[in-house]
Amino acid sequence: GYIGLEMAEALVLRGLKVSLVEQADEVMNTLDADMGALVSAALEEAGVTLYRQESLQGFDVRSGHVKAVITDKREIPADMVILGMGVRPNSALAEQAGIPLGEKDAIKVNDRMQTDIENIWSAGDCVESFHLVSKKPFYVALGTVANKQGRVAGINIGGGHATFPGAVGTAISKICDVGVARTGLQAKEIESLGLSYVSSKIESKTRAGYYPDAQDITVKVLAESGSGRLLGGQIVGKGGAAKRVDVLATALHAGFGVQEMVHLDLSYAPPFSPVWDPVLIAVRQVLKKI
Amino acid sequence: GYIGLEMAEALVLRGLKVSLVEQADEVMNTLDADMGALVSAALEEAGVTLYRQESLQGFDVRSGHVKAVITDKREIPADMVILGMGVRPNSALAEQAGIPLGEKDAIKVNDRMQTDIENIWSAGDCVESFHLVSKKPFYVALGTVANKQGRVAGINIGGGHATFPGAVGTAISKICDVGVARTGLQAKEIESLGLSYVSSKIESKTRAGYYPDAQDITVKVLAESGSGRLLGGQIVGKGGAAKRVDVLATALHAGFGVQEMVHLDLSYAPPFSPVWDPVLIAVRQVLKKI
Repeated sequence: GYIGLEMAEALVLRGLKVSLVEQADEVMNTLDADMGALVSAALEEAGVTLYRQESLQGFDVRSGHVKAVITDKREIPADMVILGMGVRPNSALAEQAGIPLGEKDAIKVNDRMQTDIENIWSAGDCVESFHLVSKKPFYVALGTVANKQGRVAGINIGGGHATFPGAVGTAISKICDVGVARTGLQAKEIESLGLSYVSSKIESKTRAGYYPDAQDITVKVLAESGSGRLLGGQIVGKGGAAKRVDVLATALHAGFGVQEMVHLDLSYAPPFSPVWDPVLIAVRQVLKKI
Repeated sequence: GYIGLEMAEALVLRGLKVSLVEQADEVMNTLDADMGALVSAALEEAGVTLYRQESLQGFDVRSGHVKAVITDKREIPADMVILGMGVRPNSALAEQAGIPLGEKDAIKVNDRMQTDIENIWSAGDCVESFHLVSKKPFYVALGTVANKQGRVAGINIGGGHATFPGAVGTAISKICDVGVARTGLQAKEIESLGLSYVSSKIESKTRAGYYPDAQDITVKVLAESGSGRLLGGQIVGKGGAAKRVDVLATALHAGFGVQEMVHLDLSYAPPFSPVWDPVLIAVRQVLKKI
């Protein structure tokens, strides 16, 4: 996850020798594996040793100090261990109060951030959200969503009226020298909904190719087979590349199909983009497959 | 315009002493004057001498060489003069062929890029486009629009079927160390349509304030009074700040009101944005006024 990778980056930049054990096929499992591989490459280039598809079995601890991490494949000497075990809502108090819980035991709220019990409101990393692409409840623990929910809850508690419609699953992170972003649904989420999809993955540049400091950017776009409805997108790239995911996030809010997106009037000048923005190049490629 | 300002930048960076004469109140009249003032400040900081609200009257030319530029207020010694006089479609050939012209004498085409005469197609800086916000024909001479139109014309000429729905008036440029972008309608365009609007202009940072290299970004958003429909936006800022205009452009394609935009699930992590993206901060401010 984000925190584990960001810690690996921080420590390797401080000059420590860092190993990362990940039981999944690829790091950053909020991306599809083909995009996660780009993050692995950036970590390895920065000097992090990766052990993927390897399970943590335990620790060799002597006199209260860790000496090694034991996986199903090897023993890795270590002076310090950091566990990135994911995020779960701390909803025990709500459960004890009889407030209904939902996805991953997050607190159920309506679109005004009101729980099932009058005068009790909830917002942030404890609550269930609504996914505007899958149209199903989901759990997301991110500052942007929490902050928006807090604003809505505050307005309502203060006697106003505001609603929080939901989120599209946007997230961004910087891992070593690459930005990593995703929005909407990734391949395995689409599959679990029983939808069929097509995708394209393209490589382009953040600026006109001839312009100084043009950086690599890889964009993946996923769309529903037949209808062409945009389902999600992922970006890995240097510079501010990953922030371009916001165009895909906005398109998801709009419910756009890739047919409409191909003509999005995105900005172009050589210091900012190729003539066809990398996001639109990916959209054009996926359009050929629907 | 863009070309004049980009030339001024290029020459001052080469070490030349550069003066810029502009008859309008402010440079970059595709932005509202309050945003254009930020571009003026960047030009002056780079060493360009600006003469605004000043009209070119003529040149002092001796033995075939220019010696000075004469304005209605002064005489500016000069060894070289560059004229940035705007862009007009070169549609004389089409007019002679009897093809109807439209806005600013640009060639009229339907949404398949077909002129009024069978088997004659047109695309690019010569043709009239359709503005998806004003819902009226307009003339735009930009590479992105031309390229999209060329693709549509090519598909149709080749026997396929494609349409170009129009554009929202997005443009971006780098002037000295600031990026400058606009999309949709600016204040004077809204007024000329007889619409009433509210606007907000906010200052924020491109990254979390505590994160290294957080840069200044100013975002202006314009929305229709009453309905809250997004009408346009302008961004001036350092780093890649201006490219964020693409979120506003995509929202214009979607026909979003600022009420819906306030919950856009845009990406946040400290290296990329404050928790509330600057675009959303501007949207929140304008929402209070509609």
